[in-house]
Amino acid sequence: MSNIFSERIEALRGLMLSRGWDAVIIGGSDPHQSEYPADRWKQVRWLTGFTGEAGDVVVTLDHCGLWTDTRYFIQAREQLEGTGAVLHKTRVPEEVLIPEWLGMQFGSDAVIAVDSLCQSAQTVESLRSCFNVIGVPDLLSVLWEDRPAIPQTPVFRIRAGETRQEKLRWLRETLAENGCDVILVSALDEVAWLLNIRASDIEYNPMAISYLLVGEDYANWYVLKDEVEDPQSLDTFDVLAQEGISILPYDSTALSLAELEDKTLWLDSASVNAQLREAVRCRVVLRPSPVAERKEVKDPKEIEWMRECHIRDGLAMEKFLYWLERSLAAGKSISEWDAAVKLGQYRSEIADYMGDSFETISAYGKGAALPHYITPKENAPLLEPHGLYLCDSGGQYLSGTTDITRTIPLGDCTDEEIRDYTLVLKGHIDLASAIFPAGTPGCRIDAAARLPLWRNLCNYGHGTGHGVGFFLGVHEGPHQIRQNMGPEPLVEGMVTSDEPGIYREGKHGVRHENLLLTVDAGTTEFGSFLAFETLTLCHFDASIIDVQLLDRYELEWLNAYNLKVFETLGPLLDEELRQWLKTKTAPIVLE
Amino acid sequence: MSNIFSERIEALRGLMLSRGWDAVIIGGSDPHQSEYPADRWKQVRWLTGFTGEAGDVVVTLDHCGLWTDTRYFIQAREQLEGTGAVLHKTRVPEEVLIPEWLGMQFGSDAVIAVDSLCQSAQTVESLRSCFNVIGVPDLLSVLWEDRPAIPQTPVFRIRAGETRQEKLRWLRETLAENGCDVILVSALDEVAWLLNIRASDIEYNPMAISYLLVGEDYANWYVLKDEVEDPQSLDTFDVLAQEGISILPYDSTALSLAELEDKTLWLDSASVNAQLREAVRCRVVLRPSPVAERKEVKDPKEIEWMRECHIRDGLAMEKFLYWLERSLAAGKSISEWDAAVKLGQYRSEIADYMGDSFETISAYGKGAALPHYITPKENAPLLEPHGLYLCDSGGQYLSGTTDITRTIPLGDCTDEEIRDYTLVLKGHIDLASAIFPAGTPGCRIDAAARLPLWRNLCNYGHGTGHGVGFFLGVHEGPHQIRQNMGPEPLVEGMVTSDEPGIYREGKHGVRHENLLLTVDAGTTEFGSFLAFETLTLCHFDASIIDVQLLDRYELEWLNAYNLKVFETLGPLLDEELRQWLKTKTAPIVLE
Repeated sequence: MSNIFSERIEALRGLMLSRGWDAVIIGGSDPHQSEYPADRWKQVRWLTGFTGEAGDVVVTLDHCGLWTDTRYFIQAREQLEGTGAVLHKTRVPEEVLIPEWLGMQFGSDAVIAVDSLCQSAQTVESLRSCFNVIGVPDLLSVLWEDRPAIPQTPVFRIRAGETRQEKLRWLRETLAENGCDVILVSALDEVAWLLNIRASDIEYNPMAISYLLVGEDYANWYVLKDEVEDPQSLDTFDVLAQEGISILPYDSTALSLAELEDKTLWLDSASVNAQLREAVRCRVVLRPSPVAERKEVKDPKEIEWMRECHIRDGLAMEKFLYWLERSLAAGKSISEWDAAVKLGQYRSEIADYMGDSFETISAYGKGAALPHYITPKENAPLLEPHGLYLCDSGGQYLSGTTDITRTIPLGDCTDEEIRDYTLVLKGHIDLASAIFPAGTPGCRIDAAARLPLWRNLCNYGHGTGHGVGFFLGVHEGPHQIRQNMGPEPLVEGMVTSDEPGIYREGKHGVRHENLLLTVDAGTTEFGSFLAFETLTLCHFDASIIDVQLLDRYELEWLNAYNLKVFETLGPLLDEELRQWLKTKTAPIVLE
Repeated sequence: MSNIFSERIEALRGLMLSRGWDAVIIGGSDPHQSEYPADRWKQVRWLTGFTGEAGDVVVTLDHCGLWTDTRYFIQAREQLEGTGAVLHKTRVPEEVLIPEWLGMQFGSDAVIAVDSLCQSAQTVESLRSCFNVIGVPDLLSVLWEDRPAIPQTPVFRIRAGETRQEKLRWLRETLAENGCDVILVSALDEVAWLLNIRASDIEYNPMAISYLLVGEDYANWYVLKDEVEDPQSLDTFDVLAQEGISILPYDSTALSLAELEDKTLWLDSASVNAQLREAVRCRVVLRPSPVAERKEVKDPKEIEWMRECHIRDGLAMEKFLYWLERSLAAGKSISEWDAAVKLGQYRSEIADYMGDSFETISAYGKGAALPHYITPKENAPLLEPHGLYLCDSGGQYLSGTTDITRTIPLGDCTDEEIRDYTLVLKGHIDLASAIFPAGTPGCRIDAAARLPLWRNLCNYGHGTGHGVGFFLGVHEGPHQIRQNMGPEPLVEGMVTSDEPGIYREGKHGVRHENLLLTVDAGTTEFGSFLAFETLTLCHFDASIIDVQLLDRYELEWLNAYNLKVFETLGPLLDEELRQWLKTKTAPIVLE
């Protein structure tokens, strides 16, 4: 059995034979190590047909392996059928990662070719300590004839809490404090944040594909501009140039780096690719960019705008939930896809809506048991008037980024559905209401969301919370709340999701997600403490809660949250919807 | 101002001048890196007068510094007065550790002398990468004229779940699996565990100062035996020799190591000292000993005996608490010291009692605000019929090791005392009743005990739980439950303490401590889960609990625990005490 993908893999083997390569590594990212690459860099998809958001491929003369994590095992098995490629599981106890696997296949004289443009400098460096590594930029280009170009969407300026001059001043001070002269900002969201610009080069991610090189008295922005004719980009370039920022061609980045002499250059260990690293001749400090951490801490203006955009996003959500309930009650036939489209419509009516922040997960029943379910456009399952419907969605606005999951009972639910719904809500509330000492990393409070689930022998295989940008990536690091050993502390001003879940294969899935802002909780003789303020505003359906499973403070939290939703959104809704929301947010009382 | 200690420090400086040393490092441990060294190796105490259980000293020609952690700041400041030595704080955000501090004082040509016998090989190795390090075994001996000898107490055999032959067989298999031929077991509790022997060389720690070298077909026990005349030791040596274990002089260990040729030797990175490391000529693998992890997992016999010994220990505790209440009610004058002595007496009446497992902390009122308070023998504070009395104690028995803390209301308590008492109990219960996935390290569930305290802006500066040995050290690693990033998972069969606290300087201290056995909690579609079985049996005084602060499951846990204490211990107590315990363990009911 063979298909287009097995043919492409064979073609790559032909290239390998002609070049004398024993193995080729194709990474799932782009030259900026973005989590979501543009189509041009979806090399794993082109080669194997696998469409998951995380995956690396190794091809040898007699093996083709895809390395991906728990989220994508089912999907990978289906998509790899007939390609000859084999799934290698990661994030499981028995995982054998790529370098280790290569070590089992080859000696140190093996020739390993990597796409040096899309592999991080760190990865290639560690491979070099074991093998003879050849870096080939855009390795697949000779085979991939209709490869998409690098996207060039209009680049526009945004209002921001701090001006780009203030941000650049801070960055230069940070360079000096760390004994560096120059920094290459290579992560796309960091460039966008520093320059207060946005674009749409990557779906859902409002960034422009570019690099920024900042020295003591200059800032060079390497961006695609050869064919720029749109007025927004021209205006942006014009304004930035007036501020002293040089606009240079994207493909001249490596050359500029090579010309640096007698300087100490800070390269971002998380995002710089091997090709750029190897272009550098001067002294290099390879460590995480200081912009990542700073960007996570929202400034007062950004916080104010994020609060406002969550009101508007909440209104869209409530309109959607009302429409859903009414339509199903009226016996209308609604598919998962229809629901996702309708929600997108409500969001698009918001004044400063700039698109969704990721592809809406609209999943009924057993579909929701896949945490990263992809709603099919054709023949999407219909919503039925019983059981649970899960909707995970978010918007990009000039005033911020949202990410919300609601699990909605569409009618009668099983005892198991009711219990799972309540336990996940318990976990969500326990994290949302947690207080913790300043300096606490997210991994130390991840258990707050899990303990109620663990107590009932339940668990979920994904993280509890990810950082969220300000009209930037819906995933933003390095801070997070998960079962890792990440040392990054939660800091006042950070925005993080709170999204525990329970997934029962073939049955149903529950996830409850709000965004939380880290805020000051006061200082006592035991130190300074932090807490969370919930930004997301959309009621939790209390009708199927098993009240016996909630503790008093959890019930109080739920009632207070639903009341806040009603009091904030109610006055902004028309009478009919306001009355409906009043019913939906009525406090539940302990018998 | 000067005293005996400043004179000793000056004498050391004289030695330094004559030898050309720029700095001397004196560690707080012994040649086995024991947590509690015998008197011979209390070098820090001899040099500076500081008696804390953790501290290292650096002496230069113009500075003497003691590095110790939060537990000992107050004590160190008091004890160092007049010595000229200065406190350097560790485990604080601004800590500057010894290597870093030395780097700020000296260049790489500085000559740093270390006591290579009492410093770990790893520490010395990392110092050598920065400085010119001279290792001097027993560095202080030329100055310390009446230095105590290495202790030699009777060595006796114990009953154990596995024979020493079974344990040695497992160790040899582990060596082979790891590509090693020989292992030097250098941690004292590991030698005792492997050989099923005990002694009393170190107070509270039933171990014999010795090394064990295990090869494919031999086992050499290096132990002090020159002057052995006691029948227990002679019998032990005799039996072990008959089993093929060679008994060799303690001071011939280094020589034996030097003679190993063409072998791969496993040295325990946690406990091998620099002097032994440097004696080795063959290939060395320096990593944590496999014995540490294996020893932590108690076998079924040890678990059975530990359960039994906690019944007997619990009886002693209840007798003590009854005596305390009656004596105070009768108006008797009881000091902290008197109470500690009385508790020791009750324990010593138990058939297989072998001593206490650490020095009893008997602290009334503000004394209890110091987590590591030392009860003074002379002029100890009297217990008063109000407020809180804290007693942290434990026993060594042939059938196991115990460690228990109770905080006892002696009469009226302030609202703050009642609240702190209840919150700490809440934290204790939340950890004791936690369920968690197999493979979870202790650091991931530490928050279970802290979250209820954090929620009320309280915290404690020590770990929540430490491993406990089977008739071995009351502190046993590597697993623990604390705010670190330790990866060691909690495993079925491990025993760990659960001891959150709240300490208010100048007012009071609360700590509630039981020992927990890790047990299986079942397997579901979400994986295997573990839980805790509480081993300790002694009621918690429910009379001053603020019931409003407890959640339903916490109240249920407390009532069930107190009932279990009564049902287990009641039948073994005389009628009067049984009736008293019945009252003390009566369930509390939510109004």
